[in-house]
Amino acid sequence: MRVLSNEDVEQLLSMADCIAVHEEMYRDYADGQALLVPRIDNLSPTGEAGAYYAFKQMGGAWPRKGVQALRINSDIITQPVIDGRPRRVKQPKANGRWVGLVFVFSSETGALLAIFPDGVMQRLRVGAANGIAMKHLAREDARSLALIGSGWQAGGQLLAALSVRAIERVRVHSTRSESRSAFVREARLRHPELDIRATDSAEECVEGADVIMAATSSMVRVLEPGWLKSGVHISCIKSQEVDQQLLDRCDRIVVHISAQPKQYNNVMPGTANVGKEGGTGWWNAPGNRFAEYPDLAQLVAGRAAARSSPDEITCFVNNIGIGLQFAAAGALVLEKAEAAGLGHSLPDDWFSETVHP
Amino acid sequence: MRVLSNEDVEQLLSMADCIAVHEEMYRDYADGQALLVPRIDNLSPTGEAGAYYAFKQMGGAWPRKGVQALRINSDIITQPVIDGRPRRVKQPKANGRWVGLVFVFSSETGALLAIFPDGVMQRLRVGAANGIAMKHLAREDARSLALIGSGWQAGGQLLAALSVRAIERVRVHSTRSESRSAFVREARLRHPELDIRATDSAEECVEGADVIMAATSSMVRVLEPGWLKSGVHISCIKSQEVDQQLLDRCDRIVVHISAQPKQYNNVMPGTANVGKEGGTGWWNAPGNRFAEYPDLAQLVAGRAAARSSPDEITCFVNNIGIGLQFAAAGALVLEKAEAAGLGHSLPDDWFSETVHP
Repeated sequence: MRVLSNEDVEQLLSMADCIAVHEEMYRDYADGQALLVPRIDNLSPTGEAGAYYAFKQMGGAWPRKGVQALRINSDIITQPVIDGRPRRVKQPKANGRWVGLVFVFSSETGALLAIFPDGVMQRLRVGAANGIAMKHLAREDARSLALIGSGWQAGGQLLAALSVRAIERVRVHSTRSESRSAFVREARLRHPELDIRATDSAEECVEGADVIMAATSSMVRVLEPGWLKSGVHISCIKSQEVDQQLLDRCDRIVVHISAQPKQYNNVMPGTANVGKEGGTGWWNAPGNRFAEYPDLAQLVAGRAAARSSPDEITCFVNNIGIGLQFAAAGALVLEKAEAAGLGHSLPDDWFSETVHP
Repeated sequence: MRVLSNEDVEQLLSMADCIAVHEEMYRDYADGQALLVPRIDNLSPTGEAGAYYAFKQMGGAWPRKGVQALRINSDIITQPVIDGRPRRVKQPKANGRWVGLVFVFSSETGALLAIFPDGVMQRLRVGAANGIAMKHLAREDARSLALIGSGWQAGGQLLAALSVRAIERVRVHSTRSESRSAFVREARLRHPELDIRATDSAEECVEGADVIMAATSSMVRVLEPGWLKSGVHISCIKSQEVDQQLLDRCDRIVVHISAQPKQYNNVMPGTANVGKEGGTGWWNAPGNRFAEYPDLAQLVAGRAAARSSPDEITCFVNNIGIGLQFAAAGALVLEKAEAAGLGHSLPDDWFSETVHP
């Protein structure tokens, strides 16, 4: 049994590799050759006033690679008001650290093969999904990117865009000016060939962009329908960043997973503040068109059409993550870690038994 | 983070302790003070012909003890025909071993606190549930026990019965005579004070018994309705051991969990042999009365009545296990392991992260 670190995963897994293995997995999922284990968020009280405990689980089996993945998050969540708006904040209460873990099992022997933190892979797989969608939906000649958001996920989205299109110009906007400046400084160091700068408004950011990527923690729409010009591709990492009105301005919409619009919430009665987080939005509001949209697996497998003209406005909504992404990236990381001899090796007998369970 | 073994769990956890901590948990569950995370079995193909891969997950949060438990089983399953009957057999393919694991998290900090194999605890918690039910449903003066089954679970059921009633006489029957003889030999060594012997038939076994416990892997009823005498208590570890006709002969019936009659099966299309396992039975057949039966938590909390007369025929059906049992036993084992300094200690930083997940 191998214990890997975020640093190991970062060293082993490039965005390009991640996109390639995810495309293979989505194709299998479209063909009924991979099993999605739904995401369930289990919410219960914790000791801290106003906070709650969220235990999130998602999984997936990918027989082609002989793996079953399980990804869990074990978070203490608060909802402080920041800049006048309630935010959902995961508190690093485990000795100043967060707890998100991926477990990879063999579906050939049952053995637990690996455990590693989810953070680096989590960003890569979100990026990979949006990158794959962009590959099929954005114009081939897209050169300019508008990025709304400048946090950890925004970096993954930028990497994904650069992996699938010859992006030359990037504009970045987020509500916190220090954050966007820092993001731009770092991106210039990493990608000196890019023309990249921050903008003071979201509207200025999207002006002239071939591709708009939202990568925020916003609970409300971050784009105005009137800003969309013909031929643009829109990408977002959560459903709340868009709404039905904005989607109705688009010609072609693809969601990440059509089988599960959002997680199932399993809530202990009396758990503080959970209600505020919602679970409702355009995707389950009356008159929504969620059920009409094909999903990424169908797009990758050619069962849903890609962009069909340069003028179309296209949109990809990364509505929810799936454990199968961790099966795909996990199988690849494990293969590479074994070849490189990376990680801490623990006795397999600690994680198996002679007692018939 | 502490890695414990089955031997550690066995050393730390007695049946009496297990029953006590489970009673506390069931009371909280009845009061809405514990969160059940449903059991889901995820079934997909494996490399071996005729076999399939089963990844089972169940969990639960128990805020009083500040824990969230997750129990998984990662099994290669075949259905060989043994003695003319199809059996469900878990193949120990992980280097000759099985893979069932319990993960205990802190719902106060999010940290992963412990990992251990599930086998020993699995038997203790099944025994604890049936023992608690017997405590509330069997006659106080019950002295004689009929045990149908002589496998691993039967040993746990015997321990549970001895914990809650002053049993003096035990009769054991199972279809395999070598197995029942071996069981009796071992039980005599462990419990020399008991009058214990094997019988050639199930009917002879239950003759004159105050309590009948079934602990088999049978997919069909193991008792005949005509065998039930007034005042007897019946206990079983799976729904298939009884049926609606048998239950209709009883005056008072309690099930383990009313919220979830059986696991949810999440099956990948084309997975071999899964259909044979069923998912149907009396509990979802037309005319079944499952919904009328209170559950163990209601019984423990006094919301459902216990035995009310010496003549009643009572029955407890352990219809499905819940992850909350592992939260209860897990919290106790962890407390004891910390006090005793047992197990392998691994760096907490391996199982947490500085990256916001």
